[in-house]
Amino acid sequence: MSKPIFERVAILGLGLLGASLAHAVRRGGLAGEIVGYARSLETRDRVRELGFCDQVCDSAADAAKGADLVVLCAPVGAFGALAETIAPHLRTDCIVTDVGSVKSAVVRDVSPHIPDGVHFIPGHPIAGTEQSGPDAGFAELFDGRWCILTPIGAAEDDVSHTADRAEVEKLARFWRACGSNVDFMDPHHHDLVLAITSHLPHLIAYNIVGTAADLETVTQSDVIKYSAGGFRDFTRIAASDPTMWRDIFLNNREAVLEMLGRFTEDLSALQRAIRWGDGDALFERFSRTRTIRRSIIDAGQDSPVPDFGRHAKPGDKKA
Amino acid sequence: MSKPIFERVAILGLGLLGASLAHAVRRGGLAGEIVGYARSLETRDRVRELGFCDQVCDSAADAAKGADLVVLCAPVGAFGALAETIAPHLRTDCIVTDVGSVKSAVVRDVSPHIPDGVHFIPGHPIAGTEQSGPDAGFAELFDGRWCILTPIGAAEDDVSHTADRAEVEKLARFWRACGSNVDFMDPHHHDLVLAITSHLPHLIAYNIVGTAADLETVTQSDVIKYSAGGFRDFTRIAASDPTMWRDIFLNNREAVLEMLGRFTEDLSALQRAIRWGDGDALFERFSRTRTIRRSIIDAGQDSPVPDFGRHAKPGDKKA
Ligand SMILES: NC(=O)c1ccc[n+]([C@@H]2O[C@H](COP(=O)([O-])OP(=O)(O)OC[C@H]3O[C@@H](n4cnc5c(N)ncnc54)[C@H](OP(=O)(O)O)[C@@H]3O)[C@@H](O)[C@H]2O)c1
Ligand SMILES: NC(=O)c1ccc[n+]([C@@H]2O[C@H](COP(=O)([O-])OP(=O)(O)OC[C@H]3O[C@@H](n4cnc5c(N)ncnc54)[C@H](OP(=O)(O)O)[C@@H]3O)[C@@H](O)[C@H]2O)c1
Repeated sequence: MSKPIFERVAILGLGLLGASLAHAVRRGGLAGEIVGYARSLETRDRVRELGFCDQVCDSAADAAKGADLVVLCAPVGAFGALAETIAPHLRTDCIVTDVGSVKSAVVRDVSPHIPDGVHFIPGHPIAGTEQSGPDAGFAELFDGRWCILTPIGAAEDDVSHTADRAEVEKLARFWRACGSNVDFMDPHHHDLVLAITSHLPHLIAYNIVGTAADLETVTQSDVIKYSAGGFRDFTRIAASDPTMWRDIFLNNREAVLEMLGRFTEDLSALQRAIRWGDGDALFERFSRTRTIRRSIIDAGQDSPVPDFGRHAKPGDKKA
Repeated sequence: MSKPIFERVAILGLGLLGASLAHAVRRGGLAGEIVGYARSLETRDRVRELGFCDQVCDSAADAAKGADLVVLCAPVGAFGALAETIAPHLRTDCIVTDVGSVKSAVVRDVSPHIPDGVHFIPGHPIAGTEQSGPDAGFAELFDGRWCILTPIGAAEDDVSHTADRAEVEKLARFWRACGSNVDFMDPHHHDLVLAITSHLPHLIAYNIVGTAADLETVTQSDVIKYSAGGFRDFTRIAASDPTMWRDIFLNNREAVLEMLGRFTEDLSALQRAIRWGDGDALFERFSRTRTIRRSIIDAGQDSPVPDFGRHAKPGDKKA
């Protein structure tokens, strides 16, 4: 256990992300003190029971007071109001960051409230599960995953080169100590990348699960029984928190609509190939996709075990 | 180990399904003799090395000769020609079945070649992984999964009630001994159910991986690095064998196009909600999907562990 990086870390929002962060901070001994806040008394009481925060406050302002790191871990639609609430209480030189899944809208909503002398450095750890709430958190969530920081006003050729370079470095060191790799991007590019790697996959998963629920020709019980053919993987993704995802789609509209347009265009071409029995076109399209899977496994971003290891036999290696 | 159910089981096609079936038959001692055939010398030689068949023949006819159970395990587009080749060599009273992912087209292609006295009972085990070839096979593939039989000419109110009821029972017993649960359906209904639970999910997964590969605004390396946000799950499904999937879409056209039409309609509604910032509509759509996930887990068709157990901690239970 190394010397704490921050004296007092305030985590606002104590669901999957906030709780996991608290666990990781404690595991690494990265803070003198971990202070938490969540909206509902129910969640705050549950966190007091679980004990992964040193202190749970009944207001965001109290939690943020005196902190040298504040991390926004609520759904992104709540960030503006949270920032406004805590602003008058922030200590000079404090770093404010977040874990929100979109970045341009967060910059738009949060920046105006940040007082002089406080450093706002937006962030997004690319790590999660389909579960939510404080009980879902665990220290290993960020291990080996990427965390993207999008410092504001960064130089074009070096996104980590900003006025508050020292603070950006410190925050990067903090995330590395939480188990992450750290990368830098501008907010707009972040939103495009995540639109295709995360937001569109979730939209499609929610959509097909909805489509399946509405069929008259196939019963719900058929769908459930025979879901092992592929459908069950989509239900996992579509089990994610609806509030979080509503906020993401409301706040990354342009990028999501752009990716969705491409997706629909490509799907129409596949539909046409099926309708006209064009086996060559289908084969060609289906042959291009194995390489990318291999690269993801080689990059350590997924397990090589078939079926995500659901069938893992003793002796099989997990990634 | 119980008494063998069949004297000689011939498996035609020795990839993931054929190899897994051979392993399961051997594990259960379900056949006096397991005989295999695959199209290429390379695969046949590999299976000889792997040793999961008692005998590997260089022609489908030789493998089928004298068998009391023949299982077609090639891609469905090859079934008609295979059936035609083996027909003259089939022993009277032999059961011919298959593992193909579509059923109406298989009935159409195979039935005309089946000689009098031979019992053709189409089947489909709902079990698989994204891998293919003889090395991918393993005995546990069918454990706890469903196998659907679609006996021909069955009574409307009792799909297992056919002229060859004894043979249907025997085949069902065989699949149960391989670890499966057995269900009966008519071929048309099977194709509708699988169109939504398996074929459409694969089509969508292939499509989004293709869309991602073609973007100019986001690099391939961005997509790979940040795939943990959801995309990587789709790449697993899209890593499946292109020949197998081409054949499925060519042979389940109507049902797939119907499901695809529904999916696209629903996706347009979501697109509209995003464009107009209709948060209530998004929230409502995203709230309906958790129940179905829970039912799939309760039905034993998926693991309850978050993220398919990729993050499993020691002490976590696997389903
Ligand atoms: N889940 C993922 O996979 C993932 C991955 C990367 C980033 N993220 C981002 O992480 C953030 C949190 O996601 P999560 O999965 O941790 O969600 P979660 O498990 O649902 O937790 C959300 C937390 O935020 C609190 N909260 C909700 N509304 C609030 C408000 N108006 N003001 C203050 N606090 C509020 C909730 O309090 P109550 O319990 O009292 O309602 C809860 O403690 C989101 O911005 C999301 O985009 C998520
Ligand atoms: N994979 C799944 O998840 C899954 C699940 C349920 C059902 N199924 C069905 O199972 C069947 C096999 O799939 P699989 O995943 O086992 O595929 P696979 O691993 O690619 O194996 C296919 C096997 O069929 C042989 N074959 C190919 N073309 C042939 C032909 N024209 N004549 C004779 N043999 C031929 C191949 O021989 P070579 O190696 O010599 O080319 C290989 O041994 C398909 O009908 C599929 O629809 C698959």
